[in-house]
Amino acid sequence: MKLSNFYLPLLKDVTEQNTLVSHKLTLRAGMVRSIASGLYAWLPMGQRVINNITQIINQEMASIHSHETCMPIIQPLELWNTSNRFESYGKEIVKIQDRRNSNLLFAPTHEEIFTVITKNDLKSYKQLPLFLHQISCKFRDEIRPRFGIMRSREFIMKDGYSFDINEKKSIESYYVMMKSYFSIFKKIGIDIIIAESRSGPIGGSMSHEFLVKIPDNKLVGDAIYYEKQLLDKIQELNNSSNIQDMITIQKYYSAIEEIYQEQPPMQYLPIQKCHGIEVGHIFHFGDKYTKCFNATVKNSQGQDIYPYMGSYGIGVSRLVAAIIEVHHDEKGIKWPYHIAPFKAIILVLHKEAYDIAQKIYNSTNVIDDILLDDTQDTNGTKFARADLIGIPIQLLIGKNTIQNNKVEIRTRSSGKITELHIDDVIHILNSDIKKLL
Amino acid sequence: MKLSNFYLPLLKDVTEQNTLVSHKLTLRAGMVRSIASGLYAWLPMGQRVINNITQIINQEMASIHSHETCMPIIQPLELWNTSNRFESYGKEIVKIQDRRNSNLLFAPTHEEIFTVITKNDLKSYKQLPLFLHQISCKFRDEIRPRFGIMRSREFIMKDGYSFDINEKKSIESYYVMMKSYFSIFKKIGIDIIIAESRSGPIGGSMSHEFLVKIPDNKLVGDAIYYEKQLLDKIQELNNSSNIQDMITIQKYYSAIEEIYQEQPPMQYLPIQKCHGIEVGHIFHFGDKYTKCFNATVKNSQGQDIYPYMGSYGIGVSRLVAAIIEVHHDEKGIKWPYHIAPFKAIILVLHKEAYDIAQKIYNSTNVIDDILLDDTQDTNGTKFARADLIGIPIQLLIGKNTIQNNKVEIRTRSSGKITELHIDDVIHILNSDIKKLL
Repeated sequence: MKLSNFYLPLLKDVTEQNTLVSHKLTLRAGMVRSIASGLYAWLPMGQRVINNITQIINQEMASIHSHETCMPIIQPLELWNTSNRFESYGKEIVKIQDRRNSNLLFAPTHEEIFTVITKNDLKSYKQLPLFLHQISCKFRDEIRPRFGIMRSREFIMKDGYSFDINEKKSIESYYVMMKSYFSIFKKIGIDIIIAESRSGPIGGSMSHEFLVKIPDNKLVGDAIYYEKQLLDKIQELNNSSNIQDMITIQKYYSAIEEIYQEQPPMQYLPIQKCHGIEVGHIFHFGDKYTKCFNATVKNSQGQDIYPYMGSYGIGVSRLVAAIIEVHHDEKGIKWPYHIAPFKAIILVLHKEAYDIAQKIYNSTNVIDDILLDDTQDTNGTKFARADLIGIPIQLLIGKNTIQNNKVEIRTRSSGKITELHIDDVIHILNSDIKKLL
Repeated sequence: MKLSNFYLPLLKDVTEQNTLVSHKLTLRAGMVRSIASGLYAWLPMGQRVINNITQIINQEMASIHSHETCMPIIQPLELWNTSNRFESYGKEIVKIQDRRNSNLLFAPTHEEIFTVITKNDLKSYKQLPLFLHQISCKFRDEIRPRFGIMRSREFIMKDGYSFDINEKKSIESYYVMMKSYFSIFKKIGIDIIIAESRSGPIGGSMSHEFLVKIPDNKLVGDAIYYEKQLLDKIQELNNSSNIQDMITIQKYYSAIEEIYQEQPPMQYLPIQKCHGIEVGHIFHFGDKYTKCFNATVKNSQGQDIYPYMGSYGIGVSRLVAAIIEVHHDEKGIKWPYHIAPFKAIILVLHKEAYDIAQKIYNSTNVIDDILLDDTQDTNGTKFARADLIGIPIQLLIGKNTIQNNKVEIRTRSSGKITELHIDDVIHILNSDIKKLL
């Protein structure tokens, strides 16, 4: 992509006071714009990050046979009376009346709908286990929307649901999803801590939060109390980890503040405290919803039973903010490679170097992953912009390139500079850009 | 994908009376389910078609440098008072009150928002032309939602917007988008007719509809009056067509009924009539919105001017229904190749052939594009299901495969059967599945 063709409106100053660095940086780097309290527009730069995260989630969901769906955002209120949740959510839910005065609502989560749409179609234990998910907009009328996309009213969420024949199988599905979440966050490139949590209005017997660890002097974040070894255990997890590893992880104490105060660990344990931003939340709630909606399937003995369910969320738009909270410096964002809106940016630092830069750009078959800064701005402006928007690899095309055919490669996260021959740079861009890091 | 791992709930009978074949087939083929009047859930099979259409649109939009964004669905009502559109849309717009009694609405289209988000960031003619788009859910509280996803209240739409420095440039952008729409519909695999149209509440000086041609005995569809040669001209268009071709096409008379009655062609022309379902609509409305919101940019002389805008929609979910209306037979759907939810389905027609089928399936690197029917159903059921869900290529693995290493390949659209050696089938699956058609 040539920068001259891309819509990237930057901001020098952000008027928002007492807010988070991620809020300032998403505005300054042209990722989002505010429309009204808690309502944000995602501009192309932000949307590219959202798309990358979405792709990672969908690939991981496919690998555990969770199928993508798309449920209506607006739903009949009566469904929420059946599950008795309209009251418990209170004013967070916005109610809507249509032209026939039917009561509808903008759904903040989708347990009811997924129970209802499977009610008639799920007939036999042979169809289970079943995982379904979607990535879509939700609206929660927060009492204090703030910090930009970190706590907005309309937001992008992945929500998924599991259906199983009994509690044992359902808990297995819960762990399958837990493992899958660890894989997702690992691929995204962030360190995650897991903590036991309350189920809240979703209900259920078991619930865990996935939190991005942040320094504890932040304006947001929850306190987490955990056994020291847990962090090492999470580090040990990798894509080949099996469900058993999840159960091992669960043996270590880790809880959000609320639970820690009520139920501190029974025996003496070396407990540590940290702060984290919730980006994922999983719930096991058994037959709560299938009972409410009288949604049964036949088991292998031909008896009608209520399937067991779990639900699994990732706050996609909030995740973008949480990642910036931990991956930035005073100059701007430092994107983890896999979710970076562009993998590399070509900076032309000498007016006679433009043709060479253009040649490198045109020689690659991945121009959608590369941003060519073809502006007439000063080198200082170009450097500052590249650092602000946080593209992981900066290719510096200047005098050294004209005279020696060398390209300097600067890594945004470490600032490290290496040097390569133009031909090698083109070769790597065409094979595996990541090798330039 | 193994069918045993895929959520595909089929329906034998559809209770809906007096409805469209696309409504019945989307229900029978497990693509959608009804939640309430005009509210539909997209199941995995339907979602795969939506994703394929979305991908084609996004690729085509990228090629004309239109960048994807994501705007809030819920918007302040005051924006719609500024543009004076809240009244003109009437009861189609659902109004929402938040917990602070602020008036919001669920946006049926996004001209206001795109004007507002660019208002502060678009400063100079140097940033123009600009194309932005999104693919998202809309809600229009139709007085008579019916025919399933053809006329639902919540639906999936691609909406795009252009910004230009003057009327001439803006009309150029309009034609760029017109060309792009022809490419999109061609890639999707449907015949399109274009007709002059009314702008309706969006307003503006020029507007065209893109319609899928259907037999005129359908329950839905608009009458279109067109000059005979227009259809040949549209057929001649291809991806290499330039803007000039669009202007040529425009010379031929073609209008929806409403316009034909008011302004029939001036001189004698050989006019024909057909029926079509509107799947795309483009509007040129100049500075209507930029004036309303006082959104200016500097021109090359440093003067403040109002940019000219156009807006461009594709009804993504309705398109799915329109395609089925023209691509089906009494047995089920016949998907055009590029949007088919799976490209090929492997049917095991002999119990001893399962291992060979499994071997073919495992030998390919495109299992996400292939459905392996690993059920214990009868051959009749397998054939009927494959025909119903409309996968373009059916690979028949039976006695002939066991005895002669031959696979019969049946094309869903023509019913034509050819025969190939197993090794050739695997080779083609791994190189270009389409060659099996």
